[in-house]
Amino acid sequence: MNKTTTLDIDIRFGDCDPAGIVFFPRYHRWMDAASLHFFMTCGVPPWHVLEGTTGIIGTPLLHHEANFTKSATYGERITISTTVDEWRTKAFIQRHTITRGDDLICESRETRVFCVRDPQDRKRIRAIPIPEDILRLCR
Amino acid sequence: MNKTTTLDIDIRFGDCDPAGIVFFPRYHRWMDAASLHFFMTCGVPPWHVLEGTTGIIGTPLLHHEANFTKSATYGERITISTTVDEWRTKAFIQRHTITRGDDLICESRETRVFCVRDPQDRKRIRAIPIPEDILRLCR
Amino acid sequence: MNKTTTLDIDIRFGDCDPAGIVFFPRYHRWMDAASLHFFMTCGVPPWHVLEGTTGIIGTPLLHHEANFTKSATYGERITISTTVDEWRTKAFIQRHTITRGDDLICESRETRVFCVRDPQDRKRIRAIPIPEDILRLCR
Amino acid sequence: MNKTTTLDIDIRFGDCDPAGIVFFPRYHRWMDAASLHFFMTCGVPPWHVLEGTTGIIGTPLLHHEANFTKSATYGERITISTTVDEWRTKAFIQRHTITRGDDLICESRETRVFCVRDPQDRKRIRAIPIPEDILRLCR
Repeated sequence: MNKTTTLDIDIRFGDCDPAGIVFFPRYHRWMDAASLHFFMTCGVPPWHVLEGTTGIIGTPLLHHEANFTKSATYGERITISTTVDEWRTKAFIQRHTITRGDDLICESRETRVFCVRDPQDRKRIRAIPIPEDILRLCR
Repeated sequence: MNKTTTLDIDIRFGDCDPAGIVFFPRYHRWMDAASLHFFMTCGVPPWHVLEGTTGIIGTPLLHHEANFTKSATYGERITISTTVDEWRTKAFIQRHTITRGDDLICESRETRVFCVRDPQDRKRIRAIPIPEDILRLCR
Repeated sequence: MNKTTTLDIDIRFGDCDPAGIVFFPRYHRWMDAASLHFFMTCGVPPWHVLEGTTGIIGTPLLHHEANFTKSATYGERITISTTVDEWRTKAFIQRHTITRGDDLICESRETRVFCVRDPQDRKRIRAIPIPEDILRLCR
Repeated sequence: MNKTTTLDIDIRFGDCDPAGIVFFPRYHRWMDAASLHFFMTCGVPPWHVLEGTTGIIGTPLLHHEANFTKSATYGERITISTTVDEWRTKAFIQRHTITRGDDLICESRETRVFCVRDPQDRKRIRAIPIPEDILRLCR
């Protein structure tokens, strides 16, 4: 069975828009936090440590698809459950499910890649095959 | 032909993450701005005006799917082109294409609905059929 | 002695800028969360509840002054300690101290007021004297 | 007379909080953009270019003090006027004034320093004396 991690988020006043509900890009911010939280819970160091040893600077997003089912507001706590559905050679599909108690708030599937800086031009980044040691920790 | 509006965004230092590229939830923030910009360019008042006359508080997102093709960084200007691909009874499909000169940065399709507050419980919101006068302005 | 509440924040990748450190407006976002957390811990309901009973929509900022002493990055946990130094008729001075273990990261003093919507023009807001029941809970 | 630059900001729905007004940390985000805009308008390259030539990674904030006079909301345009009041050996005082037409919205004074990475430990940053060529461009 795939490893699953969870991350609790307390929704704040400033996360909400004039309609009084969470402004949806905040969910993506939290799911990005949940993505790294998944790796760190599996034993992978944060990117700023990994950059020094492997050159990896993060896992940029190539594609994602999200459903927003119910709205939420501040003073509420939501939980993000995160797993990896599929490991390809270079990309992986990470899935997040956001709930508030029994309510489903949001589901998202993200396609991400591990990236390093281009040694010829440090301002460019490029995808690398998923490192074996990271696979071993996370699968 | 469908109406298309454009919105230029100057990318700022604070829009970028430790990898030096735009943190992807920022793109959704900008596409949300482009969504309202589309309606306002078509002649629809901002929601805080519309709320007083029609009760409409905004166009929450039900679903979206986005492709991220190239990265971008601060000091660069990007352009968001926005159109509505489909008007249904209650929902509409809004499409955003983000470019930097000839480079395609991101494409996204959003399913949104017009919402009002529930008169019985002002903390709840619910979707309404797309108003005829808004359709006339935007189609 | 004044009541003090604490709020822990786990710093995320997306909270950091291209220099790899927390982008400073994020600290203000967290201190705003700590401000409401103070009131809710003292027993004051969140604003969206209070708006229905008292009309109070929040505690906008009039003035603040902040010192940033050390930088912080993602993967680290910081703690915000919050207290009210002074209660005036309409305004109050709220002080936040952000630490990471023994390191002092930031100190800020905020002048805030309780606000309601103007009944003549709901888009305008105005300050009110601090309600007695809130004072009793928080002092 | 000191050089002054201006930056226009169109306020967006997502910049506003449940009270319907700009969430104040957004002003700091915009003033941070105005800070770099000042340097780039004076002819200083963006930090990601400067890092390659001089090692400078940005101008972190040491201290700031801000007054918020009136609120603003989406659909409005504000203008940030930015100047440097004082150049010290290592620090400089940058002042931002935010207006909406004749209305004063916010004033802020920021103390900032130019920083480079510590060559012994690239995760640490330290302040350097303000480079002469930057002073010549900006004073």
